[in-house]
Amino acid sequence: MDGLFSNRVVDVQKSFIREILKVSLDPEIISFAGGLPNKELFPVTELKEASNSVLDVAGEEVLQYSNSEGYLPLREFIAQRYREQRGIEVSAEEVLITSGSQQALDLLGKIFLDVGDEVIMEEPGYLGAIQAFSVYSPSFKTVSLLNEGLDLDDLESVLDNNQAKLLYGVPNFQNPSGISYSDSNRKQVAQLIKDNNVYFIEDDPYYELRYEGEDLVSFKSLIPEQAILLGSFSKTIAPSFRVGWVIAPEVVMEKLVIAKQASDLHTNYISQRILYQYLLDNDLDEHIAKIKSNYNSHRREMLASIDKYFPKEVSCAESAGGMFLWITLPAHLKAMDLFELAIEKKVAFVPGDPFYINEEAVNTLRLNYSCVDKAEIKTGIKRLGAAMKEIIT
Amino acid sequence: MDGLFSNRVVDVQKSFIREILKVSLDPEIISFAGGLPNKELFPVTELKEASNSVLDVAGEEVLQYSNSEGYLPLREFIAQRYREQRGIEVSAEEVLITSGSQQALDLLGKIFLDVGDEVIMEEPGYLGAIQAFSVYSPSFKTVSLLNEGLDLDDLESVLDNNQAKLLYGVPNFQNPSGISYSDSNRKQVAQLIKDNNVYFIEDDPYYELRYEGEDLVSFKSLIPEQAILLGSFSKTIAPSFRVGWVIAPEVVMEKLVIAKQASDLHTNYISQRILYQYLLDNDLDEHIAKIKSNYNSHRREMLASIDKYFPKEVSCAESAGGMFLWITLPAHLKAMDLFELAIEKKVAFVPGDPFYINEEAVNTLRLNYSCVDKAEIKTGIKRLGAAMKEIIT
Repeated sequence: MDGLFSNRVVDVQKSFIREILKVSLDPEIISFAGGLPNKELFPVTELKEASNSVLDVAGEEVLQYSNSEGYLPLREFIAQRYREQRGIEVSAEEVLITSGSQQALDLLGKIFLDVGDEVIMEEPGYLGAIQAFSVYSPSFKTVSLLNEGLDLDDLESVLDNNQAKLLYGVPNFQNPSGISYSDSNRKQVAQLIKDNNVYFIEDDPYYELRYEGEDLVSFKSLIPEQAILLGSFSKTIAPSFRVGWVIAPEVVMEKLVIAKQASDLHTNYISQRILYQYLLDNDLDEHIAKIKSNYNSHRREMLASIDKYFPKEVSCAESAGGMFLWITLPAHLKAMDLFELAIEKKVAFVPGDPFYINEEAVNTLRLNYSCVDKAEIKTGIKRLGAAMKEIIT
Repeated sequence: MDGLFSNRVVDVQKSFIREILKVSLDPEIISFAGGLPNKELFPVTELKEASNSVLDVAGEEVLQYSNSEGYLPLREFIAQRYREQRGIEVSAEEVLITSGSQQALDLLGKIFLDVGDEVIMEEPGYLGAIQAFSVYSPSFKTVSLLNEGLDLDDLESVLDNNQAKLLYGVPNFQNPSGISYSDSNRKQVAQLIKDNNVYFIEDDPYYELRYEGEDLVSFKSLIPEQAILLGSFSKTIAPSFRVGWVIAPEVVMEKLVIAKQASDLHTNYISQRILYQYLLDNDLDEHIAKIKSNYNSHRREMLASIDKYFPKEVSCAESAGGMFLWITLPAHLKAMDLFELAIEKKVAFVPGDPFYINEEAVNTLRLNYSCVDKAEIKTGIKRLGAAMKEIIT
């Protein structure tokens, strides 16, 4: 059976992060390499009640096939929350329920990308998006992500010199860097998008996890016809259900529904019903407040430990929310070299390399704080600081 | 925002069947147009117990992210069932859990099909597969499906004259036709596949629903290195969970896992755990026996009514299982014309048209019996027979 695979998969390598996570399985290693929500905060009892409730009241119905768009009351709940909490005009008809927002990325690749089509990505950027789009063999163009958002000169020049169909970004507490676009950066990026025939994919899974400062304007508000907004319950309720959503203008929505049907008919329906019942019977804001308080205490512990144990040549990017901190080593050092030394010292992280499309052997790395105990954060950062000192001298 | 969509979606039309189903929503219409399992047979209480059990014992864990391959004990259960019940050599490592077998089709399209690559389909064929593959813009070649299986001369000639990568078929109780490949047809098809550099996608969602005759050999047994076997819990437990699987040789499995990760990270994990718990605590064979007894009584009612009410110029294909019967009108008639008349008489079905890639205005149609009451089957078939008589004269 020779040579039958499509061009798109022949060169794809196994996930770098999967390999990293395998190394970190040693129980003596304190791992900041993960990207998971803290399972201790999952509302197990409430979800069990919600599950019993839907099976008692509508058991036969919730076990049947359903429609490709998703459960309408859940779509209405999502739309209403955007309207009431953020003043973003969203209607239920604009919301498509997806199997996690990872699937939204796959569906967007499917409906937009022919081989060689140009897609603009943040550098560094979210690995899941790079993987999802790669399947459709686009030509990736990158724009540097600075502390205040996208590099505007860079973006303008990339837009001018290409016919990009899509610009992908995570404006709030980005993965991997934890940084957010500033208010003025958002407005200038929006203006550049307006001037071009391009959609902005606004991936926003961490929006609810802000620990400091004020909420910033959404691209969906700034450029409603050119923004495609992605969200998810994975970080606020539980990821196991794989329930996310994409909000898109009508002309895009129509294509997305067709692609969704061809991909998996519809998103797990009983999970949509359980989540909706949970949302009816519980106060989501109260639950999110608990998560924020917990993650923020982990974050403070990590920031304090970094301040205490990391050499002063190492910097940490400002981050007001999410689950990650982004570390930059002195320019001549490589994160991969530090990784090997760190594993010897029983601490793990994700070297920045897989998040870059163009750059190699980078000096940046990602630290997760959401699912590591506070005591372990201190010990782990101390170990990592020691490894840094060794490699710097 | 002009001209940004990929070539693959520009020409795709809204699902014909969705439109048909909308017409059938009139409560006075008796609809044989569906393709759903009978919801009255879903094991609601048992699934509720399974759900409580996994949330009580491992709540935090079952709500977390999981791996792309699927829950290993569930994969082992599936493999073991193939080994013990059907003598098919399958190991857990060969099983990938997918979001319904529809997703398995999408993933196979993703890993195999570049634009213009040739895929051989049964004519008539399963619409979900046509839709899933269409996204990857292949060149479809068709082989006629006869009462005893694939037309062998046709298949040989299509294989000789093309470099097809994939042959897709539903050897047991096919959707739409209900027919099965005979034992000798399977062996001859397998031999032709062996002689060519092509994979056979053996889509087998109805295998467990046999009402007559003996089980027939699987392509996975005949040509283990060239068969890719698909299965699902949608017809035996419940479709809402979207849990299916694909069994593939190692070299294919490796690519499928990468494509799966890029598509949605992993299949809904709590659903995998609930289904596995259900399988541990209950006797699946006993449950399937109930479904078979129920569906077979519906089928007998439909066959008896057809015998009584359809004009003798109309024929019904032999079918030993599944959920459908396939009707052929006299050659000069069109199923779409009958459809319009039938709707006036308050009975609906699916005209054969969407199941054909090459033929148009066909004289065949599909009747579903799994989710229509027996009394309604009789009345509906009587109405349909009356419509046939009108159109024939």
